[in-house]
Amino acid sequence: MQVQLSKAGQKMDKSSGVRAIMKDINETLAGNTDGICNLSAGNPLILPEVEAVWKKYTQKLLDSPEFGNVVGRYGSSKGYEPLIQAIIKDFNQRYNLELTSKNILITGGSQTLYFIVANVYGGLDQNGQMKKIILPLSPDYTGYSGISLYENSVVSFVPNISIKESEHKFKYHPNFDKLLIDQTSGCVIFSRPANPSGNIITDEEVHKIANAAKKYSVPVFVDSAYATPYPGLNFTEMTPIFGDNIVHCISLSKGGLPGERVGIAIGPEEIIAPLEHFQMNCSIHSSRYGQAIAAMAIESGEMAKLADQVIRPFYKNKFEIFHDALDRFMPKDLPWYVHEGEGSIFGWIWLKDLPITDWELYQILKKEKVLVVPGKDFFPGLTSDWKHKNECIRISLTASKEEIENGIRILARIVQNLYSQP
Amino acid sequence: MQVQLSKAGQKMDKSSGVRAIMKDINETLAGNTDGICNLSAGNPLILPEVEAVWKKYTQKLLDSPEFGNVVGRYGSSKGYEPLIQAIIKDFNQRYNLELTSKNILITGGSQTLYFIVANVYGGLDQNGQMKKIILPLSPDYTGYSGISLYENSVVSFVPNISIKESEHKFKYHPNFDKLLIDQTSGCVIFSRPANPSGNIITDEEVHKIANAAKKYSVPVFVDSAYATPYPGLNFTEMTPIFGDNIVHCISLSKGGLPGERVGIAIGPEEIIAPLEHFQMNCSIHSSRYGQAIAAMAIESGEMAKLADQVIRPFYKNKFEIFHDALDRFMPKDLPWYVHEGEGSIFGWIWLKDLPITDWELYQILKKEKVLVVPGKDFFPGLTSDWKHKNECIRISLTASKEEIENGIRILARIVQNLYSQP
Repeated sequence: MQVQLSKAGQKMDKSSGVRAIMKDINETLAGNTDGICNLSAGNPLILPEVEAVWKKYTQKLLDSPEFGNVVGRYGSSKGYEPLIQAIIKDFNQRYNLELTSKNILITGGSQTLYFIVANVYGGLDQNGQMKKIILPLSPDYTGYSGISLYENSVVSFVPNISIKESEHKFKYHPNFDKLLIDQTSGCVIFSRPANPSGNIITDEEVHKIANAAKKYSVPVFVDSAYATPYPGLNFTEMTPIFGDNIVHCISLSKGGLPGERVGIAIGPEEIIAPLEHFQMNCSIHSSRYGQAIAAMAIESGEMAKLADQVIRPFYKNKFEIFHDALDRFMPKDLPWYVHEGEGSIFGWIWLKDLPITDWELYQILKKEKVLVVPGKDFFPGLTSDWKHKNECIRISLTASKEEIENGIRILARIVQNLYSQP
Repeated sequence: MQVQLSKAGQKMDKSSGVRAIMKDINETLAGNTDGICNLSAGNPLILPEVEAVWKKYTQKLLDSPEFGNVVGRYGSSKGYEPLIQAIIKDFNQRYNLELTSKNILITGGSQTLYFIVANVYGGLDQNGQMKKIILPLSPDYTGYSGISLYENSVVSFVPNISIKESEHKFKYHPNFDKLLIDQTSGCVIFSRPANPSGNIITDEEVHKIANAAKKYSVPVFVDSAYATPYPGLNFTEMTPIFGDNIVHCISLSKGGLPGERVGIAIGPEEIIAPLEHFQMNCSIHSSRYGQAIAAMAIESGEMAKLADQVIRPFYKNKFEIFHDALDRFMPKDLPWYVHEGEGSIFGWIWLKDLPITDWELYQILKKEKVLVVPGKDFFPGLTSDWKHKNECIRISLTASKEEIENGIRILARIVQNLYSQP
């Protein structure tokens, strides 16, 4: 039978580019994995100290009369009340806020949250006008390309780049001359720290974006999947920012629960309420077990402690290993730059004026048993024909010290050859 | 800040009617619950034998090395592979099928499944035509009113009714003279057994609907949330039906896991694949803990055993108590009818020519401390001005014997008074 899909069904039928690459990588890994340096993983590592906490609270839940209530009853579409209360208490203390349960929504993971956001605040409005989903800084999370039901509704802009030549470092900045937020904008989303670049948009930049959006009553969602206080994957100081049109969005995936899909939105009631209603209609509520163990880990303070004492140090150390390897192996005289490692679980390398595309480099590296993720798919919404989009690769800090060092050594050799060709 | 919602956001901002009533009921219950007969609950009861199985497998998961993989890793957007394999094995044996993993999709609950279905196969197509979501038999599950992003895209039809006068029984049948499936149809959905009526559309009727849909390549989704083999909430014999354009949709909510949101679609690959892609973009995948314990309970045969030996007998007994109470208390000479109790966890009473509306009856019963759900919101998509819509109430079989008997005794007295008024 030849089924016919709706327009939205056709849009959503497409897999995002990076998924196609992950499929290629998985097929490669399904063969002989001997000696492969896998620097491509998006899956966080299972850290034993982190797993132990989730095991402890699962056991506690199992031994408590609450178990039946958690798995055996439908819940509120807002989320599991003890988790909501744990978040309120922690955030009010930590950031001197006055949150109530009306400011919180628990979703079935971050991706679901941004899907709901993109279609409640973005997409066609009552007048048939397309409200855009604005990504103020490119590159950004590749998954944003899939969240809207409409083609071409996600929009991004070529950023400014600051370079420290001698250190082979660079950093992206929003280009406020190009960034357009107006009555055609539905919402703003960005990750901070950013996947893939590890960039942390500065406080000043966040305020500037939020103020521009506020003029048009546009809500701003800060994807804080790597941010402080948990999972705490910021390697430099950062402050979560709250405001009249700002929603702070947490994921528990990098805190050890990616399988359980828990997303948390914290923001003004008038922005949160329509998201809850959408969730009620599209899924009743999200799964409760992950919420229940997270409630205990946040309430006890262990979630924040894991972030500070286990998760951040682990990945920060990996970033330093990565950085040292670049210093040791990469040719000093070539125009390669690594993005300032401000956070996330990735390193991001820009090979300026690379004579081949990122995809071709990926293929060459694959032959040498080094798997990286080519950068092109991390520019969702950026239609501009900017050659930088084909000059970057993403390195996962989930790889071991040996894999990172070996991988960068091989990368250095290949890059040297590529740039030397006539 | 006055936020602006997209058109879809506005549609999804509405709470379905029955949610408003549940809110009213919860507020009533939040007061003094002494002596209240709550015949309104949609939440299944936590049956001790059922909870014990979920506890056993949670402990098993916790003690196994698979725990970290389940909660600590991202998974496939198709679902957790051991659950997919358990379903394939069980269904292939049970129904002599040749299912492979391409025929299965696990979603974050049934509601999410129908939301995806309604927007992949229903809604605006590439030519701007509205593809309708066809509910072939009204009344049906109230939640279907919320699944489409578009107003007026869910369509239903006034059914035929067969009556056994002397027994005060009736049954709905699809009215094939009115039921219209054509090139404007996107998909067909119905619950079997049905919430709220407990009706089971006959095999012949299912085939007739599916054949009508097949002519236009329209997929048919049979919401089997109460069906055999699990949770087995059919009180009369029934056969799941498979076919070229039929998807059998299971929920684990009535098998004791409503909190975990596990929906399972079983059907032709070409229908399943676009749903998986939608889910990948909107949520990556659904939560895995519920899937992991379900995999063990299905693989071991305990899920089916619970259905046969615990869940079905429990609710079947409740239905008999409900039925006996009607026989004992309801006035023999008035035109009330109870729907044939073929399955589900509800009883459905039709008060023909009731002099007041179902909503007014609900209010009167509430004053007498009896909570029921008025029937009007169980006719999603039925725009016809059919007075039957205001003549029904839903009784939950989750109530205790005493509550059911007391509630029906009070209902009988009130109904007697209402019909006797000049």
